[in-house]
Amino acid sequence: MLTFIGLGLYDERSVTVEGREAIRDADRVFAEFYTSRLVGADVADLEDYHDVEIEVRDRAGVERRPDPILDAAVEGDVAFLTAGDTMISTTHTDLRLRAAERGIETRVVHGVTAQSAASSLTGLQNYRFGKATTLPFPYAHGGDDVPASVVETIEANRERGLHTVVYLDIKVGTGPSGPDPDHEEYMTADYAAELLAAGWRDELAVVVARAGAPDAVVAADRLSALAERDFGEPLHLLVVPGDLHHVEADALTGLAGAPADLIEE
Amino acid sequence: MLTFIGLGLYDERSVTVEGREAIRDADRVFAEFYTSRLVGADVADLEDYHDVEIEVRDRAGVERRPDPILDAAVEGDVAFLTAGDTMISTTHTDLRLRAAERGIETRVVHGVTAQSAASSLTGLQNYRFGKATTLPFPYAHGGDDVPASVVETIEANRERGLHTVVYLDIKVGTGPSGPDPDHEEYMTADYAAELLAAGWRDELAVVVARAGAPDAVVAADRLSALAERDFGEPLHLLVVPGDLHHVEADALTGLAGAPADLIEE
Repeated sequence: MLTFIGLGLYDERSVTVEGREAIRDADRVFAEFYTSRLVGADVADLEDYHDVEIEVRDRAGVERRPDPILDAAVEGDVAFLTAGDTMISTTHTDLRLRAAERGIETRVVHGVTAQSAASSLTGLQNYRFGKATTLPFPYAHGGDDVPASVVETIEANRERGLHTVVYLDIKVGTGPSGPDPDHEEYMTADYAAELLAAGWRDELAVVVARAGAPDAVVAADRLSALAERDFGEPLHLLVVPGDLHHVEADALTGLAGAPADLIEE
Repeated sequence: MLTFIGLGLYDERSVTVEGREAIRDADRVFAEFYTSRLVGADVADLEDYHDVEIEVRDRAGVERRPDPILDAAVEGDVAFLTAGDTMISTTHTDLRLRAAERGIETRVVHGVTAQSAASSLTGLQNYRFGKATTLPFPYAHGGDDVPASVVETIEANRERGLHTVVYLDIKVGTGPSGPDPDHEEYMTADYAAELLAAGWRDELAVVVARAGAPDAVVAADRLSALAERDFGEPLHLLVVPGDLHHVEADALTGLAGAPADLIEE
């Protein structure tokens, strides 16, 4: 049995009660933190809290050499942990398909995602979001600005009045000059706002920093103003709003400090 | 202090560990179950598990007469519980804004949402979903078919190659003939598939029944075929896929039983 467990957004207490029980009941526990990570807990914290040993796998250890995980799941109960929800990345879906091909029973224990937290923290309604996008580091896409695909996604959503979640690049194990096991880099929202402000200087955007953490920050302002601020520790994301329902406008003003003139425009 | 806590999708163990601790620490615990509900636990189950008394409020008790909740939050620590994530509905955002206006500190403890579960259970990638929509009961929108807004949302997403989550109507406290405290009705996926099949008979769709539950079902087939099946207890939702990445296609075939000829078309 292979149980995929989403750890949620912040620390060892962000997992569901069901997930915690499944971790404790497992014979072996694997995890990957290259697609995302918990900001408030490291592997030792998780091991202490759950009283288990966690075998962390890098990208190659999940995607190219998954057999040790699958072999263990043939022999006993295996938990596979990821930050956020599980199965959000094709990596996890691929592993689940490989398990199914080998006749291994699989189960999913969901975790809280940044996407739903972005909606609930900003007060922007979940059914008014369009397609999400990811803003890569300039070095990662070979340009020095915002890729056309990101601009197109935001514009296409705005034409339909929809909000856009802009995930910010995470580079773990790969740096500007290629594979590097020690490299760990998280794009900050002020840096992202600066990149986007080149095209949309006075547009409204909303920063969500450390969604799920006790010190989560939600800040709405012009992109050029957000570029001047410091939102502290990662993970950060940005939301570019589309049309605003009146409760959404009130939420951005009342809960995220949006300048009233920007909301009324 | 007013802490909004999302209970997640299924039963009393679907809440996060952080949420469970916040419920137990609260001086008073309020809840509403008219925007959504837990399928695997009723109020008595939640009260037993958390060892608290839960004061359930109907729509009027949250939206028109919120003062008892806010007064309690001035005097002590109040937890406000909802199924899924909290703040997903404008109802909750409005309550949070009222609290902020009265100078009451607020906090959000996130829960798992049906939207992220729909993505992870189907293997369809979260960044390839467009705007979501809700299919109402015909009596609730005064027609006898699928509202134009639902068709337009699905079509606009498909033009961009994007998947659509179709939430299915929930009617609690309001029936075909108006307010009715005993009315409780959940649209099933087979009924929804039948409504949609009128326009899209042979189109691929994916049913997700009881997301988050141990007996969750994920089934991909033509709408006309899904309309003939029985997916059991609620809650159900439908996903209408857009273009499929090859891992997504494999997931629908390997994990959701999609007919191969439908995926290859």
